[in-house]
Amino acid sequence: MSRIGRAVVLLSGGMDSATCLAIARQDGCECHALSIDYGQRHRAELDAAARIAALLGAASHRVARISLGDFGGSALTDPAIAVPEQVSTGIPVTYVPARNTVFLALALGLAEVLEADRLYAGMNAVDYSGYPDCRPEFAAAFQQLANLATRRAVEGQPVTLCTPLMHLSKADIIRRGQGLGVDFAATVSCYQASPAGEACGRCDACRLRAEGFRQVGLPDPTRYADPGR
Amino acid sequence: MSRIGRAVVLLSGGMDSATCLAIARQDGCECHALSIDYGQRHRAELDAAARIAALLGAASHRVARISLGDFGGSALTDPAIAVPEQVSTGIPVTYVPARNTVFLALALGLAEVLEADRLYAGMNAVDYSGYPDCRPEFAAAFQQLANLATRRAVEGQPVTLCTPLMHLSKADIIRRGQGLGVDFAATVSCYQASPAGEACGRCDACRLRAEGFRQVGLPDPTRYADPGR
Repeated sequence: MSRIGRAVVLLSGGMDSATCLAIARQDGCECHALSIDYGQRHRAELDAAARIAALLGAASHRVARISLGDFGGSALTDPAIAVPEQVSTGIPVTYVPARNTVFLALALGLAEVLEADRLYAGMNAVDYSGYPDCRPEFAAAFQQLANLATRRAVEGQPVTLCTPLMHLSKADIIRRGQGLGVDFAATVSCYQASPAGEACGRCDACRLRAEGFRQVGLPDPTRYADPGR
Repeated sequence: MSRIGRAVVLLSGGMDSATCLAIARQDGCECHALSIDYGQRHRAELDAAARIAALLGAASHRVARISLGDFGGSALTDPAIAVPEQVSTGIPVTYVPARNTVFLALALGLAEVLEADRLYAGMNAVDYSGYPDCRPEFAAAFQQLANLATRRAVEGQPVTLCTPLMHLSKADIIRRGQGLGVDFAATVSCYQASPAGEACGRCDACRLRAEGFRQVGLPDPTRYADPGR
């Protein structure tokens, strides 16, 4: 029997990373999910991540804590900066400085400890959120770094960064996730979700998500704080 | 008057990063020091970092907390793995998986928030510690990643990674630091320093440091737990 690969999967608790975990499982990997508590205001996504890890058969689930919020500079970590509820242009204030660099670095560390072969991250450049660290060229540069950064890389076994959602639209992601049995009702995407995980229906993340379900022609399973909005 | 550059300086509290901060100050930078509490057993270095930041005129000093220790896999974060006290070959067990990748990622985030032009890190490849993430090719790959990762990079102002110690020997670093007024007695290098910052005199970090002072012909100012060792 061939060895099933071991993978670290970054799991935020949103629909993209849940689908990414389902894909990693389908790829045959033993999946170790990693969520990051970075002081985000939508902490309900961490509870969602724990549920999703269990639902999708992750071998383990860890939450790494990091005081990124102390740096400020983002609507997701600084209570003084409001989450925008209108469509904006350019890089939005929900951008967290160097977030994906930090998250991938942590995942790389865990991959080294667990001797994982792959690192899955649900970055997506199509329904472009305007985040610089969600682009294919960023992922390629991180792979180059990972090829030099770790003991295992030096020993000839670098971890492979897999970003299976990179070129999918939100509708594509929903179709793919549904086909793999992802329970989207268990996921939390909203940037200002209530402690119970109820979505605002107005932020960028909510708008992209609702539009995705509309395009696919599926009922939107999201739990909204104001169902009659 | 030309604008003085702003820099984020990774400051562990050891002699290398202290010298690196002194160099950044000499370069004319307004320096914002960043230390990382990652669950290291030699926590006395964090106290040392605060002293050094003040002594060398840093504009600010932050300690970011990160639960890297939960991952295990290193003698520096796992109490079950002893710090070696004999010379070893290969990558030592004091290697912390992906540590410099994580630290540089955090510094990159802070540089983005502070709109810093430079990021100083005291990595050193000469008195080679055997760590894969202390090599020039690793630093170059991180620069490539930083050029793509942040809002400011996208806007044409990427941060420049400066590693002024990369090609210096430990003796060179001591000479350079002394010339810049670094108080090495305030620094803590030992991997298993006591809570008061007293050095063991036996680990790799202690051996390299003592050998450096011997080569330069300076009295070793290190406070040892056992002065008669």
